This record gives sequence, structure tokens and C-alpha cells, in this order.
Amino acid sequence: MAKSPTPPVSADLPSWLKPLRRYLPILDWGLNYRSENLVGDLMAGTIVAIVLIPQGMAYAMLAGLPPQVGLYASMVPMVLYTIFGTSRALSVGPVAIDSLLVAVGLAPFAALGSPDYIALALLLALMVGLIEISMGLLRLGFVVNFLSHAVIVGFTNAAVLVIGASQFKHLLGVSIPQSEGFADTVHNLIKAAPGTNGVTLGLGLASIAGLLFFSNVLPKLLKQRGVPTGWITPLSRSGPLVVVGGSIVLVAALGLHDRFGVAVVGDIPRGLPSLSAPPFSIAQAQALLPTAFVISFVAFMESISVAKSLASKRRQRIDPNQELLGLGAANLGAAFTGGYPITGGVSRSVVNFTAGANTGLSALVTASLIALVVAFFTPLLYSLPLATLAAVIFVAVSKLLDFQSIQRLWRVARMDAVTAVITFWAVLLIDIQTGILVGLAASIAFYLWRTSRPHMAEVGRVGNTEHFRNIKRHEVQTDESVLAIRIDESLYFANTKYLEDYLMQAVANHPKAHALLLIGAAINHIDGSALDTLDTLIDGLKEAGVTVYFSEIKGPVMDQLQRAGFIDRIGGPDRVFLSTHQAMQTLGGHPA
Amino acid sequence: MAKSPTPPVSADLPSWLKPLRRYLPILDWGLNYRSENLVGDLMAGTIVAIVLIPQGMAYAMLAGLPPQVGLYASMVPMVLYTIFGTSRALSVGPVAIDSLLVAVGLAPFAALGSPDYIALALLLALMVGLIEISMGLLRLGFVVNFLSHAVIVGFTNAAVLVIGASQFKHLLGVSIPQSEGFADTVHNLIKAAPGTNGVTLGLGLASIAGLLFFSNVLPKLLKQRGVPTGWITPLSRSGPLVVVGGSIVLVAALGLHDRFGVAVVGDIPRGLPSLSAPPFSIAQAQALLPTAFVISFVAFMESISVAKSLASKRRQRIDPNQELLGLGAANLGAAFTGGYPITGGVSRSVVNFTAGANTGLSALVTASLIALVVAFFTPLLYSLPLATLAAVIFVAVSKLLDFQSIQRLWRVARMDAVTAVITFWAVLLIDIQTGILVGLAASIAFYLWRTSRPHMAEVGRVGNTEHFRNIKRHEVQTDESVLAIRIDESLYFANTKYLEDYLMQAVANHPKAHALLLIGAAINHIDGSALDTLDTLIDGLKEAGVTVYFSEIKGPVMDQLQRAGFIDRIGGPDRVFLSTHQAMQTLGGHPA
Repeated sequence: MAKSPTPPVSADLPSWLKPLRRYLPILDWGLNYRSENLVGDLMAGTIVAIVLIPQGMAYAMLAGLPPQVGLYASMVPMVLYTIFGTSRALSVGPVAIDSLLVAVGLAPFAALGSPDYIALALLLALMVGLIEISMGLLRLGFVVNFLSHAVIVGFTNAAVLVIGASQFKHLLGVSIPQSEGFADTVHNLIKAAPGTNGVTLGLGLASIAGLLFFSNVLPKLLKQRGVPTGWITPLSRSGPLVVVGGSIVLVAALGLHDRFGVAVVGDIPRGLPSLSAPPFSIAQAQALLPTAFVISFVAFMESISVAKSLASKRRQRIDPNQELLGLGAANLGAAFTGGYPITGGVSRSVVNFTAGANTGLSALVTASLIALVVAFFTPLLYSLPLATLAAVIFVAVSKLLDFQSIQRLWRVARMDAVTAVITFWAVLLIDIQTGILVGLAASIAFYLWRTSRPHMAEVGRVGNTEHFRNIKRHEVQTDESVLAIRIDESLYFANTKYLEDYLMQAVANHPKAHALLLIGAAINHIDGSALDTLDTLIDGLKEAGVTVYFSEIKGPVMDQLQRAGFIDRIGGPDRVFLSTHQAMQTLGGHPA
Repeated sequence: MAKSPTPPVSADLPSWLKPLRRYLPILDWGLNYRSENLVGDLMAGTIVAIVLIPQGMAYAMLAGLPPQVGLYASMVPMVLYTIFGTSRALSVGPVAIDSLLVAVGLAPFAALGSPDYIALALLLALMVGLIEISMGLLRLGFVVNFLSHAVIVGFTNAAVLVIGASQFKHLLGVSIPQSEGFADTVHNLIKAAPGTNGVTLGLGLASIAGLLFFSNVLPKLLKQRGVPTGWITPLSRSGPLVVVGGSIVLVAALGLHDRFGVAVVGDIPRGLPSLSAPPFSIAQAQALLPTAFVISFVAFMESISVAKSLASKRRQRIDPNQELLGLGAANLGAAFTGGYPITGGVSRSVVNFTAGANTGLSALVTASLIALVVAFFTPLLYSLPLATLAAVIFVAVSKLLDFQSIQRLWRVARMDAVTAVITFWAVLLIDIQTGILVGLAASIAFYLWRTSRPHMAEVGRVGNTEHFRNIKRHEVQTDESVLAIRIDESLYFANTKYLEDYLMQAVANHPKAHALLLIGAAINHIDGSALDTLDTLIDGLKEAGVTVYFSEIKGPVMDQLQRAGFIDRIGGPDRVFLSTHQAMQTLGGHPA
């Protein structure tokens, strides 16, 4: 792994604090906060709070939890991440896909929304926190790299559809039995559709329209009217506030809940959550372990990718292992303050960044505003219709839909597109965790398949240069006494038999060749199976009157061949040439 | 896959037979048998029969089956393989590791040696035959390549210990309860050791000594005495005949069975097995499926490796997919004639080859001799002590022990050695099937791990040549305005983040560089994730004032980059140079 960058140590930091900086990134900006950052941080913090209050409640609903849990999960975790995390713009809290994973993972063990269910969500946050912290301490941040872009694209698209289907009942105002997977949900929705509550559906659709107007149409309108740029962002980002506020007023004023049965959020306990230890039982922890691992993995992946992409825009760097510690601490915070598993959300972090967040202070502002709402203003949320929360979810997750990426992959790397499609259908038709595993297995299998049938090329000299290229693609000169073959892959167990067959065939096709030159510029490693095969091959070719030479063997591979005694066995270092040019000068002399 | 070689069509073959040759390799030698091959074939066939009769009975005992099953499995299957298989020296029949897999796989479903157990062994042979034939028709012979040499070495060593432990009771003449794994077997043996039957143990040890004398000492003695070479092989290979015959005579003459309780083979039905359909039930087939797959896989691997190694010594070629058809047919033969799963055995095939087998006629001689024994002479085997059969197994499998290979791997490719050790312990401590899967997973994981942290090198010009090498290993000239980095790995999802970190760090360490030249000679493929990363990286470096160029991008990768629109996006084909030499001439000019 690359070493984590050491931030420049500022002169005014007390010396006893210096060792702490590595593990407390907040000190980087906190100890010498620059006043010019203040306006941006305050503005961004406020805007994110406006987005996060309805989103937090909506995602809690998606996770099958009471709305206040989503708010609790947005306060202490955010503060802890600000202390321990390395990103200055990441907005940590409830996110859509994690919430879905919580709902899917807990459903077999407790009734949706029951006290047992809420307790299991706390336990899950505790486990996710411990897993992330362990991975951070063991410096295992790199494992997330094994989820390929293709798997993520396939998984995300399917997850959006699963989330959409699971929330559609709130838009229709119907109740459906707990569903087994996507197809079952759709089936249940179709059966329940005749019972749609028209008023609820109208409110929901109007909420969606309102949210889309604020985010997509209003900024263009304001720009056309010549409104100053500094005003456009705050105005368009206040959409959730207007839509949520408007729908609360509408429901309360017209009595839509009592008269038309529009489902609302209802009573939310007022006051900050108390500090309490999450329940713990070995049996439950064992049962939740697979879900906890999947959430840790997926959550970290989402968070690190947005954190890196935002940091690169300001030349800041993100340390993946420190990020794991930050997110782990945040999840522990959620577990001890009545929350549920959280992570850094993509869209909210982008909002934070574009609204001007310069430092973690922005997140502290957001957390404080949410605390204010939770402490005093929850009664105002009583009449908030669930259809509006569903609208918040729809609009948020629809931005994650990305089928163009699959099309693009089809042009660029066909196997990646196939992997994405396999993952997509596996998530949709089996379940989320199996889907991710299937995708992971498919991407590894395709990679192995490709490397098991390496590209090899007979090469010749380009003009009078010292450069040798594929005879099928370039105008080159060859030599009939020396067959020069470039092997375009590391040699390992899965491709040794293929290599053997290919070279035997190539030698058979060149009866005049007395030397076989293997060009190793693209061989990055040779394993034990491949060494055995090369040994056998060289012996076999010797009997057929063909001597094997090598060129452009790279340093690490040469070291390995020498350690194995291979160089001595093939006839000493004279058999290995530094460059193909040298080899052909020494061995050749019979231009074809 | 390489195309299977077409054997030279001989002129005297009737034209209607030609299409059949591909699927009936027996026609290759059968239609124009050369008389000079006859002596070698007769001699080798007879010697293999002498080895195989006791081995077949011993391996049947190892598989928990009555001794005649091992003999039945040595007749029809051998004939069928001779018709359909491509190797002329392979000796097909019961082998040690397959027999162990049968015992382990059937134990949970029926009592050892019961009629149900025998029926399940037939079903297993049927399933193995069908799996192998299906794989052959689907041309899936290549999948066996994914079992690395390291996994095979680790697995084989552990299997030898498991086999040895399972047969030790026959040497001691004790009976122990059915054991759960290796440790349990050893524990049971220690508990039972005080009840050792001294006469049985003496007979067993004497048998081992006799077998070792014939195979290891006698050939040297005969050579010293000047016995002609042609006589040495038949004399030393008759060891099993002498030892088995001697022990039968000893037990019968001295009444060791009745007087001292020496366990003997007992009644063996006389006469050839009748043709009968193996029992078939879906439920049983499902239960046996994992075992059937493991046996098919392991059996094919053992067989193909010895077949290839023997064929290469005589410039003959083996077609893996046709081999699957041959072995599959042989297993079907076993299933219909009272046998159990069989394959080509390593040591017996080597005996066959060195004793002079030139064609499949040798195998037909072996099968005929065994049929003769089964038809008329089984009563002679009544007094054969089980301890002698155990001795046959010990001596046969001890040749498979190969811990030197693990030591060698440690020097050559450390991760391979670790994989072998992991496989060894997993087979010994968990079970055989899990052990193979663990080994397979470990070898793939190590491979991915290695490719996820690719070797990269800053390069410079070697002297005045056009050749560029690692600045850390060679005396080279560099240019301070151009940072030239060779990437020694294909770029794919698991290493893109590593690449990004490495290149950002490298650019930061070379503040005067205005150009970053990425040398792609060792990049064999780029996947979708890597393209995304390169896009981001190039954008990021542009902001930092560094332009990215490429050189030595290989044909297939260039095609891919063009399809993806990547070349246009980075600024057109001028950014890609054919050789590093050209690139440095164009971009450079500031020698460092």
C-alpha cells in the first residue's frame, strides 16, 4: 500500500499534540481555523441540515425503523466522524442503500419496527463499527478494491429498483404483506393497487414534482432572471424544506389524515436521545454477522469513493484506513445514541461540497441544527405524510440509476458489462448479499478466464530500429532461424498448459527455427506451476533440436528465476539477453 | 484453447473410417499394428496384471468395498479406455486417491461394505462417467488447469497420510470404530494399539519388506551380478506376485487364520461380473453430486498429467477433451459391470511404459489376464491376508509423498509454498473436499493479491541504446522534465486504486516533471474500472500541470482504448508513442 500522506505540520501546534494528529484529523483544521472559511461552512452546514432532516426520517422508514432513529443517527455519528475522519466534505449519516440492507438483514429476526427490531438495528451498528475499526487498525482498507466498478454499477441499479419497489406502497397509501424479494413486492403491489388512496397518491406525486422543480428547474429559472449565483444554491437546495413544510401544513389544515386516511409520521418523542449501551447477545451477533460484513463493506465503498473524488478536487488526500476508523467511530456513536448503521452519503456530500463546505465545521453545524429540531420541534413533524417521505426517497435514489454505464462498459470491456448485468439480476432475483457475492465471483472468474488464455505474438524488427512488434500488426522483418515470441501475461497455474500448447504448435509451424526466443517484457511474475512447465518444455524442445532463450526478463522475475536455479538449469546467464535487439543480433543472421 | 492435433492419416485407412478416427483413437494403432511392438506390449501387459491384481483388491479395501470389486473395475473400463482414450501407455483402473474419495464420500450414506454401499459406489461411477463425458463434449478439459501445482502437492501429501492412517488397522490386525477425519483415526489407532495381533503385524511388515526389496534392492543386485537388462524389469516387477503368493501359502499352510486370527480376504465369488444397470435415484444422485464432481476433477487431473508426461517422451500428443471421453466411457463401463470409480493411475502407467508398452494392446493383455483370474482362480486368493494388501497400499502411496516439492516451492515462489501448506493442513484437519476448495481459494486469492499490488518502475535510457530499464537496477540516464514509469501489470479493478496512489506520489516526488510517460509494454488488458481511474487521474494531473503520455501500448489494448474513446479524450493519437525511445526524443531534452 502507498504510505498515507503526512499532513504538513503547522508551526503553532504544541509538540505534545503532534503524535495525535495522525489519529485525530480534526486537529489539522481545528487548531488553526481560518476565518475566511466560516461563511461557506455555516451555509453548507445549514443546507445539508435542510436536506438531511427529511432524508434521515425517510431512510429510517426505508430501514423499517421509527423516523426519529434516522435523526438520532445524524447527530453524534456526524460529530465523531468529523473528529476521526480525513474528509472535510463528507456528510455522514443514514443513506439509502445501507438502510435497505438493514431492512433486508433484520427482517428474518424481528417484526418490522418492533422494539426487538430497533434493538437489533443498534446491535448491527455496533458490529459495523467494530468491523470497520478492526479493518482500519489492520490496515485492510484495500480489500474494498476487489469490488469492481462493474459490480458496483450492477448492484446499485438493482438496489435502486428494490428500494423504489419497497417504498411504492407509501406512495399508493396501501399496506402489503412483508415481501420475499423484488418480484414478490411487485406482485403484492399489483394486487393492492385497486385500494390506492387517491389523496395520498396526489400528495406523493405533488411532492415528487416539487422536489424535482427545486433541484432541476429552479436553478435555470433563477439564472435566466439574473439572480446572483450566491443565491441560487441556497434557494434551490431549500426544496425539501418547502415541500416538507408545505405538505405538513396541507395535511394539518385540511385534516387529510383524519378525513381521508393519509398516513402520517405521527408522534415523535421530543428531546435528545439518551446515551445507552446497545443490547448484546452472542447468538444474535452470530446471526447478524453476514449482514454486518456486507454493510461494512458496501458502506465503506460508497463513502471512500465520494470522499476521494471530492478531496481530489481540492488536492486533499484521503487515507482509507483512517477513514475506516472515522466511520467505525461514527457507527459506534450511532449504536450508543439510538441510531442505526450509517456512512458517508454520495449525494449529500456533494451538496455539502458545492454549498461551500471547507472544513468539518460544516458537519458540526448540521449536527447542531438537527439536535435543535430533535430537542424542541418534533411535534411540528406530526402531520408529515409518509407519501412525502417516500417522494424524498424516490428523488434521492433515482439519481443513482445509471444504465448508461453498463452500455459504456459494453463498448469498453465486454466482460465488465456482463458482470454488471449478472450482478444486477442476481440482486433483483435472489437477494442483495448473494447478488454482491455472485458479482464478485463473476468478476474474479472473468479475470482468471482472461489471464488463463494469454495473448502471445510472434514479433519482428520494426524497420531498422531496435524495436520489435507483432508481425500481424506491423511491417516487420523476421529471421527464419529464430522464432521470437512475446508472452503477454504473467505465467501462473491457470495458463501454463495453454502456454505449453501454444509454443509447441508455434515451433511445429517454424521447422527451420533452431532457437526459440521468449520475450518477457510483459511477464510480471512466474509461479511454481509455470516453472515446472517451462522446465518440461525446454527439455522437450531440446530433444526436438530447438534451444530456448529469453530476453527482457524484468528484474523481479530474474531474481526469482535465479533463486529457483532455473537460469543455471537452462544453460547459464548467456541464455538471457537484456534486450530483444541484442538477442536477435547474437542469434540471428538468416533474414526470412 | 489450442486446437487438438490431427494425427497423420495413414494411406491404408478405408475412407469411411476416417471421420471415426477422431473419436476412436484405437484405430490409430489398431488398423495397422506393427509386429515389432508385440513383444513389448505382451510383456508390459503381463507385468501390469501382476501389479494390478493385488493393487485392485487393496484399493477396493481402501474404498470400503469387497476385493472383487477392485478386480471388476480393472477389466471392462480398461478395454473401453483403450478404445476411446488417446494415451497408449495409460493404465486405467482403481487408484489410491480415488478410492479414498469414494470411502469418504459414501461413509455418511451407508454402512461400509454393505449392499447399499456397493450400490452407491456403482451410482458414483455412473455419475463420474457422465460428468467426464459431458465435460469432454463441452470441451471443458481446461478447467483442470485451475488446480495449481501447489494445491496438488499439498493435497497429495495429506491424502497419503490419510490413506496410510486408514489402512494401519489392517497392519495391526485390530478393528477401530469408523473415524471422523485423520486426527480421530490416529486417536482410535492409539487406543486400539495394545490389542495388536503380533502375527498379523509380522506378516504385514514382512510383506512391506518383500515389496521394497523387489522394487528397490533387487534391480541393483541383478545389475551387479551382470544379469541382462531385459530380465531385470520382469524379475523386479514380479515382487507383488511373490509376496502375495508367499503370504497366501504361509497363511494356508500354517493355518494362521484359524489359529492366530489373521484376517484374510476370504471367499471371492468366482466368474466374470454380469452386465447390470447401476441403481439410480434422484435423491441419492443429489447427495453424491459434490463427491462425484471432486472425483471427476481429481481423477482427470491425475490421469491427464501422467498421460501427457509419458506421451511427450515419445512425441505423441494427448487431447484433454478426448481423454475425458475415454475416462468417462471407462467409468460407465465400471458402473455397468460391478466396479467403482476408476482413472489412469500414475505409478502403474509408469510401470506399463517402462516395461515396454507401445500401444493399447498392452492394456488389453492386462484386462484379459485379470479376467482369467476372476473367472477361474479366485479360490486361490481365499487366504490372502489383509495385512499384505495393506502393505501393497503403503508401498504404493509412499511413492506419492513429496515434501521436497514444498521446500523447492518455498525457494521459488513463496506464496505457492504457503498455498501447498494451507491445502495440506486443510485436507488433514477438515476433510479432503474442503481441503481442495480451500487450496483452490488460497491460490486464487494469492494471485489476486499479487496482481492487486503491481510492480512499477521509473525507467531511464541504458547507455546510448533505445532500451529503457528500471533506474534502481541499471545504469541509466533520465530526463528531469519527463517522468517515465513502466507499469508491470494489467490494469483491473483490484489494482486501480494502488496505481492511482503510486502515480500521484511519483508525480509529487518529481516537481520538475511536466510530462508523465506511462509505458504499457506489460499491460495486457485494461478493464472498465481501470479506464475510469485513468480518466480521473489524467484530469487530476492536468490541473497539476502534468500531461500524460503513453508508449508501447500493445495492439489489443490500443484497440480497446480506441473503442472506449479514451484516445480521443486524452488528446488524440499524438499522445501515444510506438516506442519509449521515440517518446523520450519527442518529449525530453532536459537530461537530469
